[in-house]
Amino acid sequence: MKLVLAEPKYFKDSISIVSELVSEAKFKATKNGLKLVAMDPANVAMVNFELLSSCFTEYEVSGEEEEVAINLANLKQILRRTKGDDILSLETTEDNKLKIEMKSNTTRSFSIPTLEIDDKEQKVPDLSFPVVVEMDSTTLTEAVEDVSVVAESVTFLGSKELLCVKAEGDLSKAFIEIKNNETTSIKAETDDKYKAKYSLEYLKKMISGSKLSAKTTLHFNTDYPMKLEYKVTDRVLLSFILAPRVDND
Amino acid sequence: MKLVLAEPKYFKDSISIVSELVSEAKFKATKNGLKLVAMDPANVAMVNFELLSSCFTEYEVSGEEEEVAINLANLKQILRRTKGDDILSLETTEDNKLKIEMKSNTTRSFSIPTLEIDDKEQKVPDLSFPVVVEMDSTTLTEAVEDVSVVAESVTFLGSKELLCVKAEGDLSKAFIEIKNNETTSIKAETDDKYKAKYSLEYLKKMISGSKLSAKTTLHFNTDYPMKLEYKVTDRVLLSFILAPRVDND
Amino acid sequence: MKLVLAEPKYFKDSISIVSELVSEAKFKATKNGLKLVAMDPANVAMVNFELLSSCFTEYEVSGEEEEVAINLANLKQILRRTKGDDILSLETTEDNKLKIEMKSNTTRSFSIPTLEIDDKEQKVPDLSFPVVVEMDSTTLTEAVEDVSVVAESVTFLGSKELLCVKAEGDLSKAFIEIKNNETTSIKAETDDKYKAKYSLEYLKKMISGSKLSAKTTLHFNTDYPMKLEYKVTDRVLLSFILAPRVDND
Repeated sequence: MKLVLAEPKYFKDSISIVSELVSEAKFKATKNGLKLVAMDPANVAMVNFELLSSCFTEYEVSGEEEEVAINLANLKQILRRTKGDDILSLETTEDNKLKIEMKSNTTRSFSIPTLEIDDKEQKVPDLSFPVVVEMDSTTLTEAVEDVSVVAESVTFLGSKELLCVKAEGDLSKAFIEIKNNETTSIKAETDDKYKAKYSLEYLKKMISGSKLSAKTTLHFNTDYPMKLEYKVTDRVLLSFILAPRVDND
Repeated sequence: MKLVLAEPKYFKDSISIVSELVSEAKFKATKNGLKLVAMDPANVAMVNFELLSSCFTEYEVSGEEEEVAINLANLKQILRRTKGDDILSLETTEDNKLKIEMKSNTTRSFSIPTLEIDDKEQKVPDLSFPVVVEMDSTTLTEAVEDVSVVAESVTFLGSKELLCVKAEGDLSKAFIEIKNNETTSIKAETDDKYKAKYSLEYLKKMISGSKLSAKTTLHFNTDYPMKLEYKVTDRVLLSFILAPRVDND
Repeated sequence: MKLVLAEPKYFKDSISIVSELVSEAKFKATKNGLKLVAMDPANVAMVNFELLSSCFTEYEVSGEEEEVAINLANLKQILRRTKGDDILSLETTEDNKLKIEMKSNTTRSFSIPTLEIDDKEQKVPDLSFPVVVEMDSTTLTEAVEDVSVVAESVTFLGSKELLCVKAEGDLSKAFIEIKNNETTSIKAETDDKYKAKYSLEYLKKMISGSKLSAKTTLHFNTDYPMKLEYKVTDRVLLSFILAPRVDND
């Protein structure tokens, strides 16, 4: 497998975000692009990352697909060394290494070991979400940071026209109303109110997806997982699934 | 009580500064404005804060005055979430909470508990200061940071034309001369030299008042408290009184 | 001794860099300039600093030369307080202090104790380097930071046209090729390949010399010390000698 990227930014930023949730993961290179599906170690969050083959200036995969498992913290540290105008190539070698080359004035190459991961393959589950909110990434980021001041979990309340983001700590409370407007589109399947609670520790990591895209889509359902998606057409998709917190209040 | 601020900056910055010195305090809303007078826990420093009623676009106080006691660290964390163009409102509720609302595109509201503080009321003492130095806030800030390199307390020496700021550590010494000029006005009542020593730990917190105003006024007297005042006409006053350090040198 | 600098930057930045390697050192003021030659406490690195007399607007030394030994961490902290337009003067006093004065609008003076250092005088050793690489400071800085991601020591491989910078950690490797081009001049005395290994902990401190000069010169030889030089003509010289790491691979 040899993959060459003229714009390393999407790959670099995505790995930086994913590595906060997952420490080791298996990349799969198919004819459509480079993919990664992984659970966090606590089995609370799933990451789905795709870098489409249209991002690459060279894209060689032998056979139908190739897999390579990597320590992401390791990969992230090396990708940090890429600069904006570097041409980045990723190549698996015969001695089970991943060779990462950065080319500009100088040629810099790194090699890191590939891993054996025997896990059964992770599949993105088929979920149904009656509430879908498309909004500026900053709107969600601000709301998550607001409620983080008072608590460690957040409740989303969605209806046809309104998304409420609320949190209640031991002493203090926070409540944010996000309405349908030019930049926000809130859709609910029925006239019901949908309500679910999620961990802010995880959400705070996920909203870093705003580095990739100025828009995000939040999907959820009552006492059900949520999905958060950052997407750049023809380039990259980074989406997260997060299990709900169900407790006795 | 319901108070609305179109420019939250003065309130936000003041609380951030005051919370470094005082952890819990009682605000008093009178017809002139919102006031706070508090001592630090060690009884070394007093803070006097006034946000004049002309700052507010809405200002409802029931009766002559209303009081509300708050944990300032708590309040500060929430005010950090205001952005420049937010309209900020503060409202006491029937269930003994302070509701803090920030309005721009979205409406975000926080509520924090009010406290019972039984302390007798703090009054700003009547002090007489023969030395008064009006100067750029940065002049004082620089001098305090200079002497902090060598020691933990500072001595002010004031006379008719000259303010000397000096400090002596175990090994090193620092000495700064500030003269009367276009930006600095030094006044002393008599031809005497006035001299007093203060804690730099406290002073370093107080000089953050430079966030509010580009000018500051320092008042002191020999072996006597000092007063440091940051003021924006018709808007805000933040002043500090600091007890002297009297030692055997 | 009284020395006055209109541009304190070179002195300030150099002391900041040197203080990372050496804690106490003896300055020598001769008619050519202010000099310092010192070993780090582990005897692995030598620093050679010269601030030429042409930098000074006033330069008084009594006799052939004067010496003054100083704690560099102490001096660094005080020099941090200089601003770009300060006129900086250094003066030894009769009570064995070094007086450091900064003059702009205000006059600020500091005094720190001078030390007794009985060490025999350090001399810059006479070394011969068949490989000399002149390059942009950032080229070396980037290469050192690249290899620091994977290991704690670096190997330089030099030949007539090419400098390779390589490092091998327990798991990962890095390899950078630097070629002769408009900004880089690589010279080797013979057609041999020269190879030596050095500590990155030290090198990372030395490359801060890039604050002084946009160009640097690296000199080395097989299993032999290296010399790294940052120079501003008629102003300042900061050079380092670093012992090689010789190990069993």
